[in-house]
Amino acid sequence: MNLPIEAIRAATPGVGRRVHLNNAGASLLSSPVLETVIGHLRRESEIGGYEAAAEAAPRFEAIYDSLARLLNATADEVALFSSATTAWQAAFYALSFGPGDRILTARAEYAANYVAFLQVARRTGARIEVIPDDQDGVLDPAALAEMLDERVKLIAITWAPTNGGLVNPAAEVGSVARAHGIPYLLDACQAVGQFPVDVEVIGCDMLTGTGRKFLRGPRGTGFLYVRAGFCHDLEPAMIDHGGAPWKAPDRYELRADARRFETWEKDWAAFLGLGAAIDYALGLGLAGIAERCQHLAGRLRDGLRAVPGITLHDLGPKPSAIVSFTVAGWTADEIMASAGNAGINVNVSRPDSTLLDAQARHLPAVVRASPHYYNNETELDRLLSLLRDLNRRH
Amino acid sequence: MNLPIEAIRAATPGVGRRVHLNNAGASLLSSPVLETVIGHLRRESEIGGYEAAAEAAPRFEAIYDSLARLLNATADEVALFSSATTAWQAAFYALSFGPGDRILTARAEYAANYVAFLQVARRTGARIEVIPDDQDGVLDPAALAEMLDERVKLIAITWAPTNGGLVNPAAEVGSVARAHGIPYLLDACQAVGQFPVDVEVIGCDMLTGTGRKFLRGPRGTGFLYVRAGFCHDLEPAMIDHGGAPWKAPDRYELRADARRFETWEKDWAAFLGLGAAIDYALGLGLAGIAERCQHLAGRLRDGLRAVPGITLHDLGPKPSAIVSFTVAGWTADEIMASAGNAGINVNVSRPDSTLLDAQARHLPAVVRASPHYYNNETELDRLLSLLRDLNRRH
Repeated sequence: MNLPIEAIRAATPGVGRRVHLNNAGASLLSSPVLETVIGHLRRESEIGGYEAAAEAAPRFEAIYDSLARLLNATADEVALFSSATTAWQAAFYALSFGPGDRILTARAEYAANYVAFLQVARRTGARIEVIPDDQDGVLDPAALAEMLDERVKLIAITWAPTNGGLVNPAAEVGSVARAHGIPYLLDACQAVGQFPVDVEVIGCDMLTGTGRKFLRGPRGTGFLYVRAGFCHDLEPAMIDHGGAPWKAPDRYELRADARRFETWEKDWAAFLGLGAAIDYALGLGLAGIAERCQHLAGRLRDGLRAVPGITLHDLGPKPSAIVSFTVAGWTADEIMASAGNAGINVNVSRPDSTLLDAQARHLPAVVRASPHYYNNETELDRLLSLLRDLNRRH
Repeated sequence: MNLPIEAIRAATPGVGRRVHLNNAGASLLSSPVLETVIGHLRRESEIGGYEAAAEAAPRFEAIYDSLARLLNATADEVALFSSATTAWQAAFYALSFGPGDRILTARAEYAANYVAFLQVARRTGARIEVIPDDQDGVLDPAALAEMLDERVKLIAITWAPTNGGLVNPAAEVGSVARAHGIPYLLDACQAVGQFPVDVEVIGCDMLTGTGRKFLRGPRGTGFLYVRAGFCHDLEPAMIDHGGAPWKAPDRYELRADARRFETWEKDWAAFLGLGAAIDYALGLGLAGIAERCQHLAGRLRDGLRAVPGITLHDLGPKPSAIVSFTVAGWTADEIMASAGNAGINVNVSRPDSTLLDAQARHLPAVVRASPHYYNNETELDRLLSLLRDLNRRH
């Protein structure tokens, strides 16, 4: 289960230049991924974009197989998008709601999703309701079960929110959703690539993810999983001739598979990079990746707890590798800038990215440090050392 | 006005490897564009995706200025998308239709757009009607004017269709649309980068384009122009917190500018490449580009007319650089394959990409040869020579 960390670091061009603890923003690309993207771009420039695509067609098709393997789905259940957001929008906006219909979500739901809920609520008269948390701040599946009635038309939550370390019980929610036959859309943006994702275990109807975060894929990539039995009755909110070929002057025909949600035109170089990133993660093994992420995040949290003036804002008994904290006397932006000057990448998570949670917990902008498996203890210590120095200076 | 063709060819890595006459599919990238994209990808891999974005932020912002300059718009009237299709969808699906409302389009409308019309017609009860052509097969603005009544809620046409050489009278349509206050959406996918585009002259409310065709930008890029006065009342069909920041638990606020249609996450490398491509085209000058395209396409058509057995399928008094033809005794796919084997890139345009036009004109799959300014006469002669050989062989 032990990952070959030194070999992995040697195949990561950014290692040694920066202490990259912003993997929840965008991970450092591995060399195989970077070279796959660049290789295809160069090939496009040498022989033409469509001609390079024709040549790469079998490798492109294999992306769907890799993605299916990553999620324990089948290739006809996955589709490619330019981001997790566009994938999530394709899923969410394909659903129908009417006045009084209920959309259930979690307190730490991401802004991108929540504003879409608000728009659809205003448009249709549906209501948005927040599932209560348990005493640890984790979504409570028992409380969810008690909320259900025939007006609940969707459960849509984020598995690992953008900050706060939370890991919501995706599979327990899935059990409840399945038992009641309620559509279940899971935002796995920060989960995919960080720990194993198995759609059969989760029991979700739809799941979305991105390439650029813990999967270490390029920007401009995201994906959607739609369970085959669920896909059949879904009409995408928007179509083109890729997902819905034009069959007669007055008729289009939706593709039978999840690619009915795709558009015809695609960024081949970026998606080939996504495929390479998935293969790279599968090659290392998601269980080992998860263990290493847990180890490093745990060590970072222990270190932060030992620094006076630092408050951790993470929730749950087994938090993710997204470590959120504030430092007394310093704003999160100041910490990010100081770290940046020292060659350490952290990020700032602002209240408006998870507004309900931020208001409920009175969170200001927080520092977000998100290690990944290729990081090491020395790098964590550099951040901790910096924070101790800042603390002394205040 | 004369373009420095040899210098341009020297800065095009694909020149010399292939005779690329598939610019209506995807153009060959210029070195500055290729190196901009690769440079940013490498930078992301070195210092992190968000960190590279922060560093490139001023250059990213300048893309909007360049795009505005290309279209004679203002920077607040343009937005970036992952393709022309996603840009067009953002525009079209933001409009509201009811039973009996009329959507007017042109006979050679592209499949991507037409299936969207069909979907919205089915969803809302709107009707799709095709504007008649004049005797040259070009959309007839006078016939359009006669169709108008208060039920016409949209005029949506393609300026230069994907095949058939047609250039519809975009500005004359704009005059009619403006005079009657009817929203006008122009698909400029094959126009932008091929000849000058001036939204003030056209008088359109919305216009969409792609990076990868005549602009010579990377795949994964497209854009939308929305006239400022028109944007104000438009609610995008789908939103995220980029275009619609989350302001209060029950409220989002649409951005004031065209970026209300964008998502937060973007493929920075690809868009920086788009910016470089726009600057490159502006540097050469669109008038000179248009002249050169006309010259080469005219020469190709003259050459094709002289080959026995070849039928041109292009329409209009001043056709675009998209040259469509069939060869007696050969399918379009056979021609494309033979050309490919000889190092010449052409494409096949199938009936289902412009179904109404293909049926009306009884068009089979046609060969599409689309030169761009960096091509030269020798390259055209290679295609003509190949076709003469094939013709003799049959």
